[in-house]
Amino acid sequence: MGLFSKDIKSMDDLFVHTLQDIYYAEKQITKALPKMMEKASNQQLKQGFEKHLKETEGHVQNLEQVFQKMDMQPKGVDCPAIDGIIEESNEIAGEVEDPQVLDAALIAAAQAVEHYEITRYGTLVTWAQELGHNDCADILKRNLAEEKATDEKLTQLAESRVNLSAAAH
Amino acid sequence: MGLFSKDIKSMDDLFVHTLQDIYYAEKQITKALPKMMEKASNQQLKQGFEKHLKETEGHVQNLEQVFQKMDMQPKGVDCPAIDGIIEESNEIAGEVEDPQVLDAALIAAAQAVEHYEITRYGTLVTWAQELGHNDCADILKRNLAEEKATDEKLTQLAESRVNLSAAAH
Repeated sequence: MGLFSKDIKSMDDLFVHTLQDIYYAEKQITKALPKMMEKASNQQLKQGFEKHLKETEGHVQNLEQVFQKMDMQPKGVDCPAIDGIIEESNEIAGEVEDPQVLDAALIAAAQAVEHYEITRYGTLVTWAQELGHNDCADILKRNLAEEKATDEKLTQLAESRVNLSAAAH
Repeated sequence: MGLFSKDIKSMDDLFVHTLQDIYYAEKQITKALPKMMEKASNQQLKQGFEKHLKETEGHVQNLEQVFQKMDMQPKGVDCPAIDGIIEESNEIAGEVEDPQVLDAALIAAAQAVEHYEITRYGTLVTWAQELGHNDCADILKRNLAEEKATDEKLTQLAESRVNLSAAAH
């Protein structure tokens, strides 16, 4: 991005910029998930992170397909939002010792990541349709559906953790 | 937070930390919204930001009530996630000149903010219930419902903007 020029001139530019933003974000998430997997104690949570890592690698490939359909090379741009979300997740996880409390913190952190992706993919699908890139919209919708499903699974895990904790009292 | 000690020892500590996180976030949002209002061209969007600023001020007060019920002074903690989301919103808005494209970028930025709040309030409601702070859960649920309603209104605005743009072609 230029410092003195306004580089986003059209909806197409804005679409591509946001595509590059989520491409960078997905790649950062593939680096963050193995660390979260390591820190998790609950087996379902560990396996959930492992499954989602595979899905995230698929999302990166799907985004590469979208770039290809736009006749562009896949490229990321800095995304302070996902950097901040991951930084906060690391900070909080570093403050927790108890494994059950750490699992609760990891679930919350993962849901913050999912919600960032849900909002970006929601926006990208709308813009792809607006711009007539329907083949791109279809691919982006697949990523969106998987992020939503992951968020729902995390909510279920958060609630089952609560039930377990209540039963233990 | 201590550099060498792990300060979050219990679910209660994690709940309070996340409460302080969203309290800081809501305050940052009250500073960001007037700037977004100024940049918006679409009247519905401008009014939407104005209405949401008033709601956000209400959310800050609601959070102060939750602190009070927990016998604590309201206090914020740094929240790199919301800082990153707002920084990214400013960066992108600074790159766009065309008013219609800028409106689209502002709607997307506002939805990223809403989704951050939705995930945090969802987590806080679950934890408040787990910890038996049902009066706190009720207040947090009110904030959650308003954030969800705002996100839905933004989706409608994004879609109506698309319809307008299609009609103009």
